[in-house]
Parts: sequence; C-alpha cells; structure tokens
Amino acid sequence: MTTNIVELEQITEPTSQQIIDENRDYTLFSWSVQNAANPVHLKRAEGVYFWDGDDNRWLDFSSQLINMNVGHQHPKVLNAIKKQVDELCFAGPSFATEPRGTLGKKLAEVTGLAKSFFTLGGSEANENAIKIARLYTGRNKIITRYRSYHGATMGSMTASGDPRRWPVEPGMPGVVRAFDPYCYRCPFGQKVESCHRECVSHIEEIIRMEGPDNIAAILVEGITGSNGLLIPPDDYYPKLRALCDRYGILLIDDEVMSGFGRTGMWLATQHYGIKPDIVTAAKGLTSGYMPLGTVIVSAPIAEYFETHMLYGGLTYSGHPVSCAAANANLAVYEEESIFENVETQGAYLTHRLNSIEQRFACVGDVRSIGLFSVIELVKDKVTREPLAPFNGTSPEMGKLAAYLKSQHLYAFTRFNMLWVCPPLIITQEQLGNGLDIIEEGLRIVDATLAS
Amino acid sequence: MTTNIVELEQITEPTSQQIIDENRDYTLFSWSVQNAANPVHLKRAEGVYFWDGDDNRWLDFSSQLINMNVGHQHPKVLNAIKKQVDELCFAGPSFATEPRGTLGKKLAEVTGLAKSFFTLGGSEANENAIKIARLYTGRNKIITRYRSYHGATMGSMTASGDPRRWPVEPGMPGVVRAFDPYCYRCPFGQKVESCHRECVSHIEEIIRMEGPDNIAAILVEGITGSNGLLIPPDDYYPKLRALCDRYGILLIDDEVMSGFGRTGMWLATQHYGIKPDIVTAAKGLTSGYMPLGTVIVSAPIAEYFETHMLYGGLTYSGHPVSCAAANANLAVYEEESIFENVETQGAYLTHRLNSIEQRFACVGDVRSIGLFSVIELVKDKVTREPLAPFNGTSPEMGKLAAYLKSQHLYAFTRFNMLWVCPPLIITQEQLGNGLDIIEEGLRIVDATLAS
Ligand SMILES: Cc1ncc(COP(=O)(O)O)c(C=O)c1O
Ligand SMILES: Cc1ncc(COP(=O)(O)O)c(C=O)c1O
Repeated sequence: MTTNIVELEQITEPTSQQIIDENRDYTLFSWSVQNAANPVHLKRAEGVYFWDGDDNRWLDFSSQLINMNVGHQHPKVLNAIKKQVDELCFAGPSFATEPRGTLGKKLAEVTGLAKSFFTLGGSEANENAIKIARLYTGRNKIITRYRSYHGATMGSMTASGDPRRWPVEPGMPGVVRAFDPYCYRCPFGQKVESCHRECVSHIEEIIRMEGPDNIAAILVEGITGSNGLLIPPDDYYPKLRALCDRYGILLIDDEVMSGFGRTGMWLATQHYGIKPDIVTAAKGLTSGYMPLGTVIVSAPIAEYFETHMLYGGLTYSGHPVSCAAANANLAVYEEESIFENVETQGAYLTHRLNSIEQRFACVGDVRSIGLFSVIELVKDKVTREPLAPFNGTSPEMGKLAAYLKSQHLYAFTRFNMLWVCPPLIITQEQLGNGLDIIEEGLRIVDATLAS
Repeated sequence: MTTNIVELEQITEPTSQQIIDENRDYTLFSWSVQNAANPVHLKRAEGVYFWDGDDNRWLDFSSQLINMNVGHQHPKVLNAIKKQVDELCFAGPSFATEPRGTLGKKLAEVTGLAKSFFTLGGSEANENAIKIARLYTGRNKIITRYRSYHGATMGSMTASGDPRRWPVEPGMPGVVRAFDPYCYRCPFGQKVESCHRECVSHIEEIIRMEGPDNIAAILVEGITGSNGLLIPPDDYYPKLRALCDRYGILLIDDEVMSGFGRTGMWLATQHYGIKPDIVTAAKGLTSGYMPLGTVIVSAPIAEYFETHMLYGGLTYSGHPVSCAAANANLAVYEEESIFENVETQGAYLTHRLNSIEQRFACVGDVRSIGLFSVIELVKDKVTREPLAPFNGTSPEMGKLAAYLKSQHLYAFTRFNMLWVCPPLIITQEQLGNGLDIIEEGLRIVDATLAS
C-alpha cells in the first residue's frame, strides 16, 4: 500500500522541468515566437514575491502583468473566493446574484457613474464600451490615440495604436487616430512650458475633418501604460472633456491598467477632476485573482438602455466568483489603506527615479504617478536617440533585461523602456532593494555606451 | 453587543428583493432592453437544480447557458478550485504553471490536436482562431455560416451569422457567409434523401467566386447551437473536410457549445470521423465553474508558430485557477462516466422528442444528439410556418415560455424554438419530469392554435 501512495505522489508531483516542458509542448504563449519562449515555472507566491522551480525568490516589480495590485495570495481575497465557490460558483448572466449587485453598487460609488456591464478582461470591456458608445450616439467613428493598447480582440486591437495591430489589419472600420500627450518627444515639436496643448487642439481639427456628427467617442487610456507611461499635462483632461462636450462626443476612459489604485486613486482621471462618460476596467479590479472586466456607464447612457436593446453579452458576464473576488479586493484597498501606501511609496519612487535620471547617461526621462512608472532609455541624453527603436529591441536593452532577470527582479521592458510597477502593498525597503538592482543594471548600460 | 451582531447580519444578508434591485439598479444585463430584464435571484444550486430567493426549486433544462455540463456545485470541481486558489491563484501568461501544462496535454490527447492557446470565453477563442488561421495561411477571408453564433466581440460577432450582428455592423472585413445544413428548411429546396449535399457543394462555388487563395478558413459550429441546433447529414463533415483539403483551407470547428460531452463526445465532429485543423472551446470545458476558453491547433500550425510570432494575448491567458477547474471538470467526465450517461439519457430524450413530434400539432421538427436538443414550433405542420418569425417572438411562444417559468422549469427559448439541454448528469426521472412540463406547455400552445 505504501508503494501505491508513493507512486501516486510521483504522478501528482511533476518536477519543474516537466512542468515547463508540458507548458511548452502543449500550450501557446502570448505575443511570442514559441521557440523563443523560455517560461519560468511559477511555483508559489506571496505578497511582492514569487518563487520559481529552483526555489529562487523573485521580486515582482511588474505585479505580474501590472495587475496584481494587492500582491500575491492575499488571504482576504483567497477566502472570499473560496466562500463564494462553496455558496454559488456560477449563475448565468440573466440571473441576479448577491456579489454582482454588490459590486455594481460599489463601482458606481467609486467612479460616480451609474451601471456596470461585466466582462472577463480588458479587451472585451473596450469592445463593449465601443459598442455602447455607437448604439447610444448613433454615430460610428471612434477617435483613439497612436500610443495605446486597448486589447487583442478585433475591435480593441483596431482601436489600439500599438504596432501589435499591424499584422492583423484591416480590422474594424471607423477608427481614427490622434497623437499622444508625449511631452518628452512631443509630436508637435513643442515644449510643455510654452505649448498651446496641441495634443488636444489637433483633435478638434480631426473632429472637424471627420465630421463631428460621425464621431461616437474618444477612447483613451487614463494614463497610457504599455506604450510608454505617458502622463499628460494637468490641463489635458479638462480640455479634452470640454472638447467632447462641445461636440456631443463621449469620453471613454480605459482604466484597465491605470485604474484601481495603480496611481493612488480609483481612476487615473480622478487626478484631473474630470468625469468620463464610460470607464473600462479589469486588471486591478480583482488584482488578477479572478478574471473580470467591466464597462461602467454614466446615468444618461444607463437610462438610454432602459428602453433600448443592449447588443452585447457573454456567457460569463457577472460570474459570481469573479465579482466576489473583486468585492474582496476593493475592500482590501480600503481596509488596508492601500492608496495611502501608493502615495507614500510613490513619493519615494519619484524621488529615486529623479535621482536615477540625473545620475545615468542612458536615462533620458523618468515618468511616474503613484506606483505606475517608467524609465525611458536613450543612447544620448542630448539627441534623445532611443536605446532601442520603436517596435524593436537592441543589444543594450537585452543586456539590461538579462541582468535584472539574473538578479531575480521581475520587471517589464519593451522597446527602450523599463517599467517599475510593483504591487501596491510594497514597503520602502522592498522598493529600494529592487531599485538598487535597476541602478546596477543601468550602470552596465552606461558602461556599454561609454565603451 | 448582541444588537451589533444582529445589525451586522442585517447588513451582510440582504433580502432577495434587495439583491434583485441592486442588480437592476447597478448592473446591465446581456442582450436585453434593461427595463424588460426581470432577473430571478439565483440563491443556491445543486446538481440539476437551483433555488430562487423564495426557495422555489427550478429544474435547469438549459444548464444555465448550455455550459454547466457536470451540473451545479459539483464537489470535485469546487475542491480543485479551492486547492488551486490556496496554492497559486494567479500567474501571468508568460509563466509555466502546473495546471496549465496538465490541461494542454489533456486537450491534445482528447482532440488529437497539438497545442492550446487559452482565452477566457468562446468569443476570444474564436477571435484568436481567426487570427491564427490568417497568420498561418497568409490569407484573409473567412467563410462562416448564416445560422451561427461565434461570440460578441467584433471579430467573433462579424463571423457570426446571427442577427445580433446587425446593429453593430460593419464589423471586421473579410467574412463571407454560406448556407447551413438545415434539412427541415433546406435553403436549396432539397430533401435530405435525394439531395446532392448542396449545403457543401455551394461552398465550393463560393470558394471559386472568392478566389481559393484568398480563403484562410471555414469556421463552423460543430453542431449549430443557439441558431437552431442544426444536425448535418452524416456525410456533411467528411465532404467539408475534403473541400478544405482540396483548397488548402483550414477547418475551424467551434465546439464552444457542442463540445465537451454535450453530444456524448469530446467534440461533436468526432461523431463524423473527421479532424478539424483548429478547435475552439469554452463553456463545457470548465462547466462554467471558472471562465476559460481555448483554441487548440494542429501540429503543423503549432510548428509554424515555433518560428513565427503569435500575435495574440490576454492578461488572463492560462489563468491557473481556470485551468485547474478545467482539469477537475474533465476528470469528472471520465471518473463518473458522464458521456455514457449522455448516451443513455440522450436515447431516452430522442424517444420522448419523437413522440412529442408525433403528438403535438405545434411541433414541426425535433432535433437531438446526446443531450443537445431543440423542439421547433410551427403554426402548421404542413406549411411549416414558424410559430414566431426569424429574429422575433409571438404571443404563442411567449405563452409557452411563461408556462415553463411558472412551473420552475428553466429552459431556453428563441424565435420559434425551445431547447432541451440539461446538465449531463441528469437522471431519466429528472429528464422525464421536465419533459412532462414541456408537454403540458405544448398542449397549451396546441389549444391556442386550435381556437
Ligand atoms: C490599457 C489596457 N487596456 C486593455 C487591456 C487588455 O486587457 P486584457 O489583457 O485583460 O484583455 C490592457 C492589457 O494590458 C491594457 O493595458
Ligand atoms: C458556438 C458558440 N461559440 C461562441 C460562443 C461565445 O462564447 P462566450 O459567450 O463565452 O464568449 C457561444 C456562446 O454562446 C457559442 O454558443
């Protein structure tokens, strides 16, 4: 009998190498050439750390995919999930359930909007936001920005400016693209101190050229995330809001990455005192514990659909366990004063990033708001030539990424940028440790550039 | 102190009416005019039953959204979820995890295909299947069928023939639509005994007219579900497979609804002895316990992406808890001989449906395979005039639906059809009870038509 138990354990406990092999042999990895995918076995995790198959402890400076806002394996969220699983694990989208109503109410409260339509991720949230905007306005065109990512499904991918859309175009018709408030490399050749906010005014020119009555919405990321963490000037959003109002155009605020505490507020746009007509969210809504996205609409839009068909749906809309996870996650934000920690640690992060910008030749710009930040690398501080081209990489960026990996610092790099977006529960000591590793990496880059 | 506890309980235990009100006031319902949404509070559930807020027991003849294949609250699936939640609740899509690899391997085994790309629902599974087919073939057009539903995101909605696409068109370019193997109302005016399978041969004409080298894939539901449960003639799939091979076109088999036991097999197309190039699945993959979809691709396609970029991804691809739920759910299918039960109960269902067809004037056709079935209602058996128009309803259909509801039988009606798709664990007695209620409802319809 003992032998059988041992055999059983051998069957149920594969080695890390076996797990990696099975993942590679039988599953496909996102946005990858598969033979270049070199997955780490994520074995266990807690707080800001996770452990690989060799029991190396990694510091998670990316909150996985910038979504694990309360960190790994938070007991309150785990318990809420298990409780809901026992009570009622699934109900179809036409039923009323306790966690769904509770979450809808909470989201209305924290955003100042009216009703939520639940999806599973950010992509379908944006799909449905676009659909809702078109149905509500009776207009078709959607203005979006070049440096943006709104998701991978056909509507969201087409709405994105991100080059990941190129290979799958043509996508959905009706998307018109505008430039970004990218002050470090202003597309209008302006300086933020002296410009006239051409990043907004050129959108008015686009509106005139496209026909105001054809434009349903302007869709923007609250703060642009994976396309460069672009923080707009303080009056950008008030001006954009006014522009929308002038032409009866809806403002859709994609807070999938920037929302739910990442910047120290529920929504990044709340820093600027404006209210969008539609907010989309996912990621930080559940901190990744369960898949969930949402489209939160204003009272007039909710009112419209009282008497008009909402042409949207999905099998898992309002999944009880996803809603329960979100409810627990949002409660953790409040009970554990997470946003206060974002403010405190965010101030320390800004301080460190500013010092990094001054001390390293390869650092052209640093941008941060709350615990949402990026270091932009250059070959030359004066010419601002990027350390890797748009939609490409370079030996130097590769070297930096490899160094961070070797130190078991998990951070997100893309093009010529390095993101610092740890879980919102991080302490100053943990943040400092990770930044020390990054400084060491930047020293290597500086040495390479100097040689 | 006692008072406080009572107050606390009052806060944490809202009444059913409060729950329904919160759901209506703060959340949007799928495919609905919101003021017509009249949600039932789903309070608890077990096996083939669920209970509403007034403790009425409902017999679930629709497996919620034709997805709870192992029934409600199956302890093995619940335990697997809770175990995974405790071990590792989330990992980003670039990591290897145990449940992800295990599931990939199992899906390759049961489908005879090679690798899985994990999504969250059926819509994004089809989005990614289309993307993969286009990238792999270098061709753009996708042939789909009119009576089909592939999902609500822009790509999947456009690929659908379902009228739910009308209000959001134009969608993704490149979709070409073909007719369905709808033998009861053959679009070619043929009879199945004497036709030459024009439902396949006309697709060859379409291929010639569209240019074979432009066509990436033919996308079909394994068995058409929510557009009428259309069961093709036995030689339909072999002929369609041959057609695809003749022109180097991929066959994408959407098994979101028809797969994973619903027809008594892993895939509905396995009844016909053919192998698709790409299979999409969701629903029965986890029986709804956790959101999960998958795109399973053949070895040549998997091989192609070894050296080519897979332009697709989502934050929750390969969510560990979703994969763990699927692994447990698939194990239940095998450990509890679920597919055998589908065969046994399916035979009883067919027997009862045939008797219903003979005995009721309002029943034009019945179609069933496994526990996947529909009753098609008509005003007149000879003229076959539908009891409600395409994309509409009628007082008679409304009466039938209301009667079933009054008897706490939960079943799906649409246009002139009534689906019978209970959980696959149903017993003959439970099935019989539900069918008795349906017979009573049909008697009311017959009486209305006769008067
Ligand atoms: C701003 C933004 N919107 C939408 C998405 C898409 O979300 P998902 O990956 O859940 O589909 C992302 C994902 O990174 C995002 O950053
Ligand atoms: C055949 C088929 N494909 C795709 C879908 C879409 O799946 P989901 O609702 O999970 O997006 C459905 C949903 O009913 C379906 O029946």
